[in-house]
Amino acid sequence: MTRGQAMAQDKTAVRKILDAVKADGRSSLTAPEGKLVCDAYGIPVPKEGVAASAAEAVSLATGMGFPVVLKIVSPDILHKTEAGGVLVGVKSAQEVEQGFATIMANARKYSASAKLQGVQVQQMLAGGQEVIIGAVTDPSFGKLVAFGLGGVLVEVLKDITFRLAPVSRDEALSMLDGIAAAEILKGVRGADPVNRDALANVIVGVSQLVSDFPDIAEMDLNPVFATRTGATAADVRIVADWNPAPARYRPSEDEIVRAMNRIMKPDAVAVIGASAEDGKIGNSVMKNLINGGYKGKIYPINPSTGEIMGLKAYRSVKDIPGEVDVAVFAIPAKFVAQALIEVGEKKIPGAVLIPSGFAETGNVEGQKEIQDIGRKYNVRLMGPNIYGFYYTWKNLCATFCTAYDVKGHAALSSQSGGIGMAIIGFSRSAKMGVSAIVGLGNKSDIDEDDLLTFFEQDENTHIIAMHCEDLKDGRAFAEVAKRVSKKKPVVVLKAGRTSAGAKAASSHTGALAGNDRIYEDVLKQSGVIRARSLRDLLDFARGIQVLPTPKGENVVIITGAGGSGVLLSDACVDNKLSLMAMPADLDAAFRKFIPPFGAAGNPVDITGGEPPKTYQNTIRLGLEDPRIHALILGYWHTIITPPMVFAKLVVEVVEEMKAKGIEKPIVASLAGDVQVEEAAEYLYQHGIPAYAYSTEIPVAVLGAKYLWARGAGLI
Amino acid sequence: MTRGQAMAQDKTAVRKILDAVKADGRSSLTAPEGKLVCDAYGIPVPKEGVAASAAEAVSLATGMGFPVVLKIVSPDILHKTEAGGVLVGVKSAQEVEQGFATIMANARKYSASAKLQGVQVQQMLAGGQEVIIGAVTDPSFGKLVAFGLGGVLVEVLKDITFRLAPVSRDEALSMLDGIAAAEILKGVRGADPVNRDALANVIVGVSQLVSDFPDIAEMDLNPVFATRTGATAADVRIVADWNPAPARYRPSEDEIVRAMNRIMKPDAVAVIGASAEDGKIGNSVMKNLINGGYKGKIYPINPSTGEIMGLKAYRSVKDIPGEVDVAVFAIPAKFVAQALIEVGEKKIPGAVLIPSGFAETGNVEGQKEIQDIGRKYNVRLMGPNIYGFYYTWKNLCATFCTAYDVKGHAALSSQSGGIGMAIIGFSRSAKMGVSAIVGLGNKSDIDEDDLLTFFEQDENTHIIAMHCEDLKDGRAFAEVAKRVSKKKPVVVLKAGRTSAGAKAASSHTGALAGNDRIYEDVLKQSGVIRARSLRDLLDFARGIQVLPTPKGENVVIITGAGGSGVLLSDACVDNKLSLMAMPADLDAAFRKFIPPFGAAGNPVDITGGEPPKTYQNTIRLGLEDPRIHALILGYWHTIITPPMVFAKLVVEVVEEMKAKGIEKPIVASLAGDVQVEEAAEYLYQHGIPAYAYSTEIPVAVLGAKYLWARGAGLI
Repeated sequence: MTRGQAMAQDKTAVRKILDAVKADGRSSLTAPEGKLVCDAYGIPVPKEGVAASAAEAVSLATGMGFPVVLKIVSPDILHKTEAGGVLVGVKSAQEVEQGFATIMANARKYSASAKLQGVQVQQMLAGGQEVIIGAVTDPSFGKLVAFGLGGVLVEVLKDITFRLAPVSRDEALSMLDGIAAAEILKGVRGADPVNRDALANVIVGVSQLVSDFPDIAEMDLNPVFATRTGATAADVRIVADWNPAPARYRPSEDEIVRAMNRIMKPDAVAVIGASAEDGKIGNSVMKNLINGGYKGKIYPINPSTGEIMGLKAYRSVKDIPGEVDVAVFAIPAKFVAQALIEVGEKKIPGAVLIPSGFAETGNVEGQKEIQDIGRKYNVRLMGPNIYGFYYTWKNLCATFCTAYDVKGHAALSSQSGGIGMAIIGFSRSAKMGVSAIVGLGNKSDIDEDDLLTFFEQDENTHIIAMHCEDLKDGRAFAEVAKRVSKKKPVVVLKAGRTSAGAKAASSHTGALAGNDRIYEDVLKQSGVIRARSLRDLLDFARGIQVLPTPKGENVVIITGAGGSGVLLSDACVDNKLSLMAMPADLDAAFRKFIPPFGAAGNPVDITGGEPPKTYQNTIRLGLEDPRIHALILGYWHTIITPPMVFAKLVVEVVEEMKAKGIEKPIVASLAGDVQVEEAAEYLYQHGIPAYAYSTEIPVAVLGAKYLWARGAGLI
Repeated sequence: MTRGQAMAQDKTAVRKILDAVKADGRSSLTAPEGKLVCDAYGIPVPKEGVAASAAEAVSLATGMGFPVVLKIVSPDILHKTEAGGVLVGVKSAQEVEQGFATIMANARKYSASAKLQGVQVQQMLAGGQEVIIGAVTDPSFGKLVAFGLGGVLVEVLKDITFRLAPVSRDEALSMLDGIAAAEILKGVRGADPVNRDALANVIVGVSQLVSDFPDIAEMDLNPVFATRTGATAADVRIVADWNPAPARYRPSEDEIVRAMNRIMKPDAVAVIGASAEDGKIGNSVMKNLINGGYKGKIYPINPSTGEIMGLKAYRSVKDIPGEVDVAVFAIPAKFVAQALIEVGEKKIPGAVLIPSGFAETGNVEGQKEIQDIGRKYNVRLMGPNIYGFYYTWKNLCATFCTAYDVKGHAALSSQSGGIGMAIIGFSRSAKMGVSAIVGLGNKSDIDEDDLLTFFEQDENTHIIAMHCEDLKDGRAFAEVAKRVSKKKPVVVLKAGRTSAGAKAASSHTGALAGNDRIYEDVLKQSGVIRARSLRDLLDFARGIQVLPTPKGENVVIITGAGGSGVLLSDACVDNKLSLMAMPADLDAAFRKFIPPFGAAGNPVDITGGEPPKTYQNTIRLGLEDPRIHALILGYWHTIITPPMVFAKLVVEVVEEMKAKGIEKPIVASLAGDVQVEEAAEYLYQHGIPAYAYSTEIPVAVLGAKYLWARGAGLI
């Protein structure tokens, strides 16, 4: 296959081969079958042919070029090497002629009765860089294509990268840069670079093949010899699964948006199991709705009482006179199914299933039952086994937890109730602005991609932060996340990341596909910012929403403490931020404001004993100069410039610049006595993520914002 | 060299070669010189010899074994390959005979006038694993020996490890496990394992060689062919530096201890530049000493006044009637030298040099001047350019910063004043128990190894946490840290870790020796816990001192939130903690206390709605069972078990067990509303490092304690 040539794709040929393998009762393809499949998809394999005579062997070998490999072809000889039936590195026509004779003689000696069909002549690949290209089927992500370097060292280092199949040519090319040893492919120490297009062609071909044929479960091209001129798969291994798992049900995007908008921003809520009795979940939900200030209609459902907390109660949702948007369930698991049928009959589009006692306690059947009811009546299910959800802009607190009402632009979700409580506690403690907090629990229906689809078009949500332990449909999530992350930052804390997929894999690629490596690659490709810890998730959710989007990569550190400057620089490298190389004129401009022994350059070290004016002047300059795109401030507590004086002057300069239309992301690290905590809070409340006693967190927050802006193509 | 054989070390031979090279005006050794040096230290190199005739070549080749390499030997032919003077892979006596003739003929054809001395016959190495063994000279650490895999891939991945030279055999062996690709050496996919002893011999030899000869600046054995039977250096490169830097001055350990004890725990302090005037540094120092409750004698030094803050002032320290242990300087830089001479004449063993205006502002000479005075009079210098220091158990606050008096067992130091202020602020905010906080600033004299030596024998210090940007004498630090860390945990935050050593290196090993990689390896070998961030440094200092030392590796997670359990498990893997495989009987014992749908195993998931008793029972069991060595608690805020109820019950169980002589490290992660913050603080104050909204920090603290305990050989 030459550069740019359209991929040959003979689907009929592949189908025929697979059908024959299936009919044969096998799930593995033989090497020749594998090669035929490759041929059908334009994936280069070594040239080969079977020669019945020495002359024919010479002619074949001359045609494909030396060296070649000679192998006996006989249905009666299984162990070719043992029979003396293999010669490698055969270098000339003369050697081929001799070799043919030798192999035939050896074979006859080995087994006088064997039927000899001739000698296979095969192009011998060598030189270039050995790589591995493969494909696997993941229960959550479906077909994935893999690329890595070949050889044992790479196996030991597990340096391999994955993409959802099929991939575009650009995505395929991105895989060549997606491994730690990427530099090797460019040719180091005088070695030839590989032909990137040829490799990309093979990757695209493999990814297309497994996408076209869901019953190809795993595939290995190992090794592929990549040279300056081409890429050829020396060995092909294909494993089929004749009963591939069906795709998870997904409503259309329109349907999701319509239902989710009614559920998340309802005008009427029914509380099934509403109670007047303190301590009951149905009581907590009622209190949270009423005291939270929800302005829509609230319908308590309870068969045994006429009025609950001053509101008329109904025996069933079916008795409610008007339309209802969402029903919150606060009844034991065993009553859920029947109530859900009534919700369905009432045509309520969403059910928030707080009750536990389903799949998480082993009651898989009970969960299946409600899933089926939901599907039958077209009711979307949130949960079960959740705390419910908050939507602050509607003053809606459809949960049994404590109310939360700080309106803001971060939407958060958690798979676990405990983590949900941590989100609420942190939010309250940090006064974080929130649009929604959602518990997903068992995810019997509504999952992360439904939430993303809703938050994408929700005007109150500017950033989405999610905790999850698995993705029920990783492929759907990746698709939606890729689109949404172009508009709004998506941060994901994927828990369980160290529990390597224990599934025994039959292919090499499969064995290298540690579950987390796939999450890592797919989330990255989807433009998702991956939080490495719960605190990161929370800090990013809090900080990203207040930071303006940077317009370029030039970051400048202005610090009163040289020591902070060094640590802040370290953090910039860790978070892939570019410290701007200071232009001479700008350097001179900064120097005007700082003592002669201070260091300009970057970090700008204004030194420790400086008055407020020095901070003011340098920060103003940093904001005014259009070559600078973001500032990191390092404050050092002194008597001359106390913490709150610093905080207020920073906010003043920022407001002054904002009035002139200048807005840049700024973060701050405050080193000092406990008063810096108040100063940090003040700064944060004025749009400057600031942290006491930490040089790394503010920079990580800025780094996350940058990561998003780059992925969204904004810088 | 065979296994276990003592290393041949012919120092005289090496000295002679080096002297000849030096006399020759060169700094690089030729290949033959390099091989002779290797011979002298028992480092195997390929066999070789020069043959004047074909017969002699055959005899040499037969003696060393085939294949061999043949090379023309002629002082007049510099480009041997160009001259057709090199043949590789010569496989038999016949080929050697032919080859000899070919090479001689080619050489004559290339240059008729060239003087041909014969043909060099060299053992050709191949097969086995290529590795690189080398040595470099670091300005701070001195001689270091390096080990890595050979080949381009490893170069790209920079997979190399360093040790201070010389190394013991055990240290050399540890290097084989110190690279990421270590598994390769054990033989993967059927490959031969390397001979570890042979490799260790070469490493030991190289490390001894560079230690014996300080003028060997860099050395490369690249590649070394490591096989099942041996290790042979195919190529030797040695670079000399005929003017190696002199070692930094170090007093004896006894002298350090004696002086540091007087400085850190003084009975009499002089304040040079003491002032009654508010806002002056000399006033702040006086206030802090007096108001801090220091019980020793305080002598204000000030020429212009008779009494300061009720204490008699002196014109000079020389006027003080009694003995003085330490002089705190609060005068401008320009007056320091003269006052320091007086301090020396008064035989005060220590000067705390708060003033800035020395090397950090470019005044290198001024700093050199005070260094010389200090050495002349045997006065140890702390600083200059520092905030001073605290020693809480003496109520000593010899600084211009705010006082700090929470007595405890963490000693902290910082190179930077800003970071020092962050330490004080964090400590106060977290109520961290501190023995000392020390500013090191320019480190003109007293540095980290002096502090370590003092803290090692200081009964009030149980853990040492240090921030540094460089180590003036990394070798001394490593030596002391290795000893101290066996007794007390040493945590280091090395700032500037991402500023790769920019020094142009002439060897391959040198080019791979990114400055931070050396710090990483040496700190690890010294038993130092490396903090990755300022918060880690602070959290480790706070937490490690309150945690009892674990007696074994079995960690059990007990959690009310399944979601926390997953994240806590992730954190265990990240922090190299072993989740105990739960024995059946213990599993059954836990199950007795938790609901049937809860999960035993590890994490023990007691589920979310449980009363205090369930936490109590399971935690008690975790403490009582001797197979469990540490507990990680995951709390989930519920109405049934509110945060403070949880915190108090945990402390009760812990106290109950302590009364029975059972003490195990416990950390806790609290998920819930803001009340969990109070509960976390309560737990911390009772010896249980606990964090709200974080699953990762408590586990990192426990991980640090484990790291230390393992390094100290306690588990």
